[in-house]
Amino acid sequence: MTDTGSPAALDARGEGDEHAHGYITDKANYLARLKRIEGQARGVHRMVDEEQYCIDILTQVSALTKALESVALGLLDDHLKHCVVDAARMGGPDADAKVKEASDAIARLVRS
Amino acid sequence: MTDTGSPAALDARGEGDEHAHGYITDKANYLARLKRIEGQARGVHRMVDEEQYCIDILTQVSALTKALESVALGLLDDHLKHCVVDAARMGGPDADAKVKEASDAIARLVRS
Amino acid sequence: MTDTGSPAALDARGEGDEHAHGYITDKANYLARLKRIEGQARGVHRMVDEEQYCIDILTQVSALTKALESVALGLLDDHLKHCVVDAARMGGPDADAKVKEASDAIARLVRS
Amino acid sequence: MTDTGSPAALDARGEGDEHAHGYITDKANYLARLKRIEGQARGVHRMVDEEQYCIDILTQVSALTKALESVALGLLDDHLKHCVVDAARMGGPDADAKVKEASDAIARLVRS
Repeated sequence: MTDTGSPAALDARGEGDEHAHGYITDKANYLARLKRIEGQARGVHRMVDEEQYCIDILTQVSALTKALESVALGLLDDHLKHCVVDAARMGGPDADAKVKEASDAIARLVRS
Repeated sequence: MTDTGSPAALDARGEGDEHAHGYITDKANYLARLKRIEGQARGVHRMVDEEQYCIDILTQVSALTKALESVALGLLDDHLKHCVVDAARMGGPDADAKVKEASDAIARLVRS
Repeated sequence: MTDTGSPAALDARGEGDEHAHGYITDKANYLARLKRIEGQARGVHRMVDEEQYCIDILTQVSALTKALESVALGLLDDHLKHCVVDAARMGGPDADAKVKEASDAIARLVRS
Repeated sequence: MTDTGSPAALDARGEGDEHAHGYITDKANYLARLKRIEGQARGVHRMVDEEQYCIDILTQVSALTKALESVALGLLDDHLKHCVVDAARMGGPDADAKVKEASDAIARLVRS
C-alpha cells in the first residue's frame, strides 16, 4: 500500500514525481476536501465583503476550522501509519526523530 | 463608525447594500487577511497534490487554523462591541437574544 | 436577579460577603460540577500512579478538559449576560473595558 | 528510567502491580504536575464559591486547561515512543491497532 515507488503505483497516480512521499492513503479524497475548504474560505471572504451578519460569518469560520482539523487528523493518521511505523520497523534512531516530529505536529494542532 | 446607514458611510464603502450590518471595524484589514487565508488553503491543496512531506503540510494547516481563529476572535470582539452593547443600550429582550447568539458562537469556536 | 447588594439577595445566598460579584446564575450547579472535576483530576493522578494504560488516561484527560470547557462557557455566558450588558446599560466607557476583558478571556479559551 | 519492572523500581513505587504498563518516562514529574492540577481545580471551586470576579475565574480555568493539555501531549509522546514503536518493531497487525488507538486519542484531544 505504501509502495508508491513502483511504476504501477505511479501510473495509478498518473504522475511520476520522484520527490513525492506517497504515504497519503486516499489522495483524491483529500484533494476534494481541500477544494471545498478553499471554496469555504472564499465564501467567508465574500460574507465579510458583503457585511453579512457577524454570527453567520462565525458559523462558517467554525465549519471551515472543523473541516481543516479533520483533514489534519487524517494526514496525521496516515503519517503515523506509514512514516512512523516504517521507521520503527527499519530500526535505528530514525524512529525517534519521526516520533518527535509527529509529537511536535500534534502539539501544534492541539494548541491551534 | 457604526453609522453605516448614512449616505457618506455608504459612499465610503462604495456600495449601497441596505442589509449590510456595518459593524466590522476594519473591513479592509479582514478582507486582506481572508485573501491570505484563501491563498494558504490553495497552498495546502498544492502540497497534498505534490505529495509533500506530511509534517510540512500539517505545519501549514496549523498556521491556517490559527489565522482563521484570529479572524474569528476579531469578528467576535466587533460583534460584542457593537451588536451586543447596542442591544443592551436599547433595552428590551433583544440584548438577551444577542448574548445567547454570541455565547453559542463562542461555544462553537472553543469546540472547533 | 443581579441585584445581589440587597439584604434579600444576601439572605438568599446565605452569606454577607460584600466583595462577592453575585452574577453566577446557578452557583450550586457550578460547585457540583467543579467538585466532579476535582474528582476527575484526582482520578487521572491515580491512573498515572498505577501506570494504567496511556490511552485510557488520555480518554480521562479529554473528558476532564471538556468538563472544564463547559464550565468556562457557562461562566462566560453569565458574564456577558450580567456584567457586560449591565455596563452597557449604565453607559460610559466601562462597557468598552468589559467587552475588552471578555474578548481577551474568550481568546485565552479558544487558544487553550 | 522506564525499567519499572525491576524490584527497586517497584519498591520506589511502593507497589507491585503486575499490570502496570511502565511506559511513562518520568512518572514523578507527571505526578507532581497532576497534584498541581488537582490544586488548581480546588482553587477554581473556591473562587466560584467566593463569587470572585468571573474573568479571574476564567483565567484560572484557561491555565488549568493548558496544564492538562501539556500533560496529555507528554503522555501521548511517551505512548508513541514506546507502545506504537514497540508494536511496529514486533511486526504483525498490532501496530495498526496501536496507531488507530493513538489517532483516536489525538482526535479527542484536538476536539476537546
